Amino acid sequence: MMAINIFELENFLNSILKPWDYDDFCHNGIQIEGAHTINKIAVGVSFNEEFISTAIKENCDLLLVHHGIFGKDFFELKGYLKRRVEKVIKNNLTLMAYHLPLDGHEEYGNNVSILKSLNLNIKEKVDVTFIGEYEDPILFMDFHKQVEKLFNPQPLLVYQNNKFVKTVGVCSGGGSSFLESVENKIDTFITGEVKEQTRNIVAEMGINFINAGHYSTEVFGIKNIGDLIRNSFGIEVEFIDIYNEI
Amino acid sequence: MMAINIFELENFLNSILKPWDYDDFCHNGIQIEGAHTINKIAVGVSFNEEFISTAIKENCDLLLVHHGIFGKDFFELKGYLKRRVEKVIKNNLTLMAYHLPLDGHEEYGNNVSILKSLNLNIKEKVDVTFIGEYEDPILFMDFHKQVEKLFNPQPLLVYQNNKFVKTVGVCSGGGSSFLESVENKIDTFITGEVKEQTRNIVAEMGINFINAGHYSTEVFGIKNIGDLIRNSFGIEVEFIDIYNEI
Amino acid sequence: MMAINIFELENFLNSILKPWDYDDFCHNGIQIEGAHTINKIAVGVSFNEEFISTAIKENCDLLLVHHGIFGKDFFELKGYLKRRVEKVIKNNLTLMAYHLPLDGHEEYGNNVSILKSLNLNIKEKVDVTFIGEYEDPILFMDFHKQVEKLFNPQPLLVYQNNKFVKTVGVCSGGGSSFLESVENKIDTFITGEVKEQTRNIVAEMGINFINAGHYSTEVFGIKNIGDLIRNSFGIEVEFIDIYNEI
Amino acid sequence: MMAINIFELENFLNSILKPWDYDDFCHNGIQIEGAHTINKIAVGVSFNEEFISTAIKENCDLLLVHHGIFGKDFFELKGYLKRRVEKVIKNNLTLMAYHLPLDGHEEYGNNVSILKSLNLNIKEKVDVTFIGEYEDPILFMDFHKQVEKLFNPQPLLVYQNNKFVKTVGVCSGGGSSFLESVENKIDTFITGEVKEQTRNIVAEMGINFINAGHYSTEVFGIKNIGDLIRNSFGIEVEFIDIYNEI
Amino acid sequence: MMAINIFELENFLNSILKPWDYDDFCHNGIQIEGAHTINKIAVGVSFNEEFISTAIKENCDLLLVHHGIFGKDFFELKGYLKRRVEKVIKNNLTLMAYHLPLDGHEEYGNNVSILKSLNLNIKEKVDVTFIGEYEDPILFMDFHKQVEKLFNPQPLLVYQNNKFVKTVGVCSGGGSSFLESVENKIDTFITGEVKEQTRNIVAEMGINFINAGHYSTEVFGIKNIGDLIRNSFGIEVEFIDIYNEI
Amino acid sequence: MMAINIFELENFLNSILKPWDYDDFCHNGIQIEGAHTINKIAVGVSFNEEFISTAIKENCDLLLVHHGIFGKDFFELKGYLKRRVEKVIKNNLTLMAYHLPLDGHEEYGNNVSILKSLNLNIKEKVDVTFIGEYEDPILFMDFHKQVEKLFNPQPLLVYQNNKFVKTVGVCSGGGSSFLESVENKIDTFITGEVKEQTRNIVAEMGINFINAGHYSTEVFGIKNIGDLIRNSFGIEVEFIDIYNEI
Repeated sequence: MMAINIFELENFLNSILKPWDYDDFCHNGIQIEGAHTINKIAVGVSFNEEFISTAIKENCDLLLVHHGIFGKDFFELKGYLKRRVEKVIKNNLTLMAYHLPLDGHEEYGNNVSILKSLNLNIKEKVDVTFIGEYEDPILFMDFHKQVEKLFNPQPLLVYQNNKFVKTVGVCSGGGSSFLESVENKIDTFITGEVKEQTRNIVAEMGINFINAGHYSTEVFGIKNIGDLIRNSFGIEVEFIDIYNEI
Repeated sequence: MMAINIFELENFLNSILKPWDYDDFCHNGIQIEGAHTINKIAVGVSFNEEFISTAIKENCDLLLVHHGIFGKDFFELKGYLKRRVEKVIKNNLTLMAYHLPLDGHEEYGNNVSILKSLNLNIKEKVDVTFIGEYEDPILFMDFHKQVEKLFNPQPLLVYQNNKFVKTVGVCSGGGSSFLESVENKIDTFITGEVKEQTRNIVAEMGINFINAGHYSTEVFGIKNIGDLIRNSFGIEVEFIDIYNEI
Repeated sequence: MMAINIFELENFLNSILKPWDYDDFCHNGIQIEGAHTINKIAVGVSFNEEFISTAIKENCDLLLVHHGIFGKDFFELKGYLKRRVEKVIKNNLTLMAYHLPLDGHEEYGNNVSILKSLNLNIKEKVDVTFIGEYEDPILFMDFHKQVEKLFNPQPLLVYQNNKFVKTVGVCSGGGSSFLESVENKIDTFITGEVKEQTRNIVAEMGINFINAGHYSTEVFGIKNIGDLIRNSFGIEVEFIDIYNEI
Repeated sequence: MMAINIFELENFLNSILKPWDYDDFCHNGIQIEGAHTINKIAVGVSFNEEFISTAIKENCDLLLVHHGIFGKDFFELKGYLKRRVEKVIKNNLTLMAYHLPLDGHEEYGNNVSILKSLNLNIKEKVDVTFIGEYEDPILFMDFHKQVEKLFNPQPLLVYQNNKFVKTVGVCSGGGSSFLESVENKIDTFITGEVKEQTRNIVAEMGINFINAGHYSTEVFGIKNIGDLIRNSFGIEVEFIDIYNEI
Repeated sequence: MMAINIFELENFLNSILKPWDYDDFCHNGIQIEGAHTINKIAVGVSFNEEFISTAIKENCDLLLVHHGIFGKDFFELKGYLKRRVEKVIKNNLTLMAYHLPLDGHEEYGNNVSILKSLNLNIKEKVDVTFIGEYEDPILFMDFHKQVEKLFNPQPLLVYQNNKFVKTVGVCSGGGSSFLESVENKIDTFITGEVKEQTRNIVAEMGINFINAGHYSTEVFGIKNIGDLIRNSFGIEVEFIDIYNEI
Repeated sequence: MMAINIFELENFLNSILKPWDYDDFCHNGIQIEGAHTINKIAVGVSFNEEFISTAIKENCDLLLVHHGIFGKDFFELKGYLKRRVEKVIKNNLTLMAYHLPLDGHEEYGNNVSILKSLNLNIKEKVDVTFIGEYEDPILFMDFHKQVEKLFNPQPLLVYQNNKFVKTVGVCSGGGSSFLESVENKIDTFITGEVKEQTRNIVAEMGINFINAGHYSTEVFGIKNIGDLIRNSFGIEVEFIDIYNEI
């Protein structure tokens, strides 16, 4: 059975994901140091008790997630957060997290992956949002079907304001506010969040909008990284799917 | 027909809503100065083209909203925002907005109003969140019915983690992140937004959670203020309901 | 008759003026979006009602100025500013502004242009201030005459503390405070502003000082850019001179 | 001959001028500590070599000014500033400065004093600007004459946009940017500075504007404080007038 | 055997120590939440493995310290800090810390306590530094003996620049930089830290200086609070002395 | 006798020490401008009255130090600082200071110099800390002797937690807090400061720790720069040793 050292894994991931290029909302890398040698990795979108418990049942000893522990503040371990950290520590697990680097990566990231899965040609990067283009416009109703299939079984929230789709912006997770920065560049926007003001803004912009879910738009990057680790180190990696309709 | 001056109206509302007590994300008060004497007020949750157009059809000349124009930045009028401002200016309308003061007001605010409508006794204020209490616990299923009735026809998203309800926190609109500040004080939380992490956090906290919609939880304060103006000045005030399921 | 698109014009100007290199006090580029296709450009130093009215009379549909709308703050349109914006919007004009990039540009900027007009060889750039040099010193009285001629009919305010002139610093507009950063490098300073402390500082430094007016020192850059646009696109460009003795 | 201790003088002035109420651009109080017991005070608007030299000739041993040494930065003593500090130290002088407290003081400040000298009744304070009112409007031409007399021999720069004067705002020194905060409250503004944009702004506001000079509007407060010290301690105090037309 | 709830204890201590009055470098109050009902409290200066281990041996279940976990940053649990937190969590302990409130408290604080132990009358508070005074000056050599006795067995570092002692400033722990704020108010300063520049600064100031150790000057406040809790709640409280010569 | 100009000297030192690469706590370069032509340089660790007086006795006219005047604040010259500056100015001396650039320089800096003096091979730079390595581990007791010899007569404070030494981190002066950034990279740390928490942190890390004194660890860089100036300009340079055990 293969085993790897957690600091070597961190160096490997940092060299690929380059967290120093992002102004993020969490520490990217090891957030809780556990046993230094690990045998199996649980990969997932979000760090929570259900994810930890499942990982333990599956005999994983490292948790690698997109949403780890967020926030810059004085040290305070209370309530639900304390219970999560307690479970990690008592089981000698390591917690690693990569946030924005997994949204914006040019090869393994969520946004690039979604565009490629929809057969769009990558055209431009604006912050962590990626824009892709079809050679010829397609009907929105056809595009919609492709998106449904890609994110199945996630229910989509759709605001249609265009009959055709040619240029698509994608910002996974809570990306609805990035819409303004690409207003004049796209006809369709896919993200994982909708706000009260979104419906009217996209109507006034004349842009199609699809909310494909925060969770569902963010499984791509972490899965890619899981595959990369498995292929590079020959270690066992399991994607633990705590599906979340939000 | 009654008419009032927009600066007198602003002074009146400031004296009640005390915007200087809040560290807000927009200017509270007049955001766009139109005709100084106005005859009819359109009251609503959000400033957008549909709201402006309806207000114009209804012969209103002042727009009073909860969500006006947000953000602290250099002056730049483009795209959908430019078209909204253009419509206001070409019709000589005034735009007034009050944001956090309408969430946190002790008498007219959204949060206090929701608690009172559910027959809870006001107990404590934490930032703009209010906490209310029943004398004796009631069944969650009964509480749920009351909430459905209050926000009808808004579909509710519910995470039940408790059979009973006694102490309820309410933070209207985008308040899901305020949950942590009241973790040990409540058994049930009502807000207008749900995030990807919310389901697991409330499960781990053992707290019931109801998302009653950003829009639907924020109609109370602005309606109350509309009524107050009508009663105080005898001027015509109309609530314009651009219902939004988000 | 030639026509151009305002976004193409903005891209063209940004590629030359590189606003991202400056930490400025306003948004550089389109500040108010009007008709997308324009036929005639009004170029001028400052955005105000007199400038807007003249531009309208001259059938201009884009205003390109050095002093647009300044300040980073919450959105608030009131008083004189609201009336200016109203006039722009009701006439479907576009407002574009470039501030520091027009002071500091190496080819088209105010400071470089003034030095060249006085036959000085460009020697060094300190922030947006440029320093130029004569091969041999000339009498201040001769230099003074050249400066009078260049800025005619602007009355000059002069503090002479040197009989000769060899090395001259120029900072257009409100640049009196940049004097300290070039104290040891120049014998003469030209700017567009004088402060209460200036007379004594330049006397103690032994440096000649000429205030040639905020307005008069800032016509060069915007005129150059107007010429550049005319030559590049063949579109009509008119410099509108709202002369200001300050 | 009377003598006083510089720390006692500082305590006395702090108790009256309350520098802790202002967010200023310099340290208010002792800026350079010299001999602890002093016999004669030089009072003036601005700290510069001419002022220091005259004070030394007049046998003063404490300099009390409105404009001392400004700026929050690392310690660096060079060029003209080093020569000023050198002259202070070699002559064992003390430098004391009070800036905003002398503009905004309710009894001794520049702005209140100017309004009272023009027989206006004090009505309101907005930041450090004071607003005064006549019972009945007077002709601008009569008001102008009074202002000329008060600031004689200072040449005034005048923009007249109203025939009458009733409510006057005063902000001494570099106060032109405070105009916007009182736009709706006054018909006439007096300050000590004019900017390129001022002419058009006051024209569009319909407000009379008088620039009475930075220096000339700031002699009042420091003179009042000089008199107060003389009366309170019986020590010799001399106002040193380094007149400056700016 | 008495038991108390950790949240009640926190409320009690907050009501006395008022952490909201301080701009501190750590969270004051519960830093790690353990068992909610506790039976015995370990009180000490600093949180480290030796302190935790001793507290566990003594059957304590709450750690109350002056130096808890410092720093405002993203969540990262690694190396020695992870091992400390691990020991706390695996033993179900609670960690509470109060930092500046224990230096500056008027009754229970370190600085007030040291002054009182040396029979000085409290005179003034400057930030968290307290100043005390003898009615008549005493010889420094006599004062030195008293200080040695008070802090025994802590070796003192002494810079004597005065033969007599009358007015003494005390700032426990790392307080050497507060010396400048009391320069003119004291003849003798006691703190718990010495820096490279201190010797020359106190010589030039003519002030006696005693470094009585960071640890030794900070046992007073936490001991007082331990006594207060024992007396108020009747619960067992033990001071654990991990003596540190620094 | 050689003489040099202070501005040329500053340009020379800046070109080598590159102060713009550091985010420092003081201005690096000329802090007080004295006579422009100087004949002899006093080099030392810290700027204080004893150092100034000795330099004057030795006929030096430029003071070049590692610790000059620190802090970013409003101008205020009082107490001991005023007396130091007064002595500099009255003797027409120039004060130059370089702080972090002398700690972190790759060739002349304190940290590199200490590692080289102990025959360690330079391996890595982390901020201004340098790490060096022996080819084979040596006994700590042998290493200790070398360190004692290097810093003689400075008394060392030693916490031994390892029998062997192979990889050593050095951070001169107040560097104890940089220990955490190299925790996993070294077995031994040398610095010039110890804090109350240090003993326990290094024990828990299992790292040897030597406090060789703030002063004693910081003589290397400034001496090297003194030698460099002497060799480059042929001017007289004298190291003035105001030894300080801290």
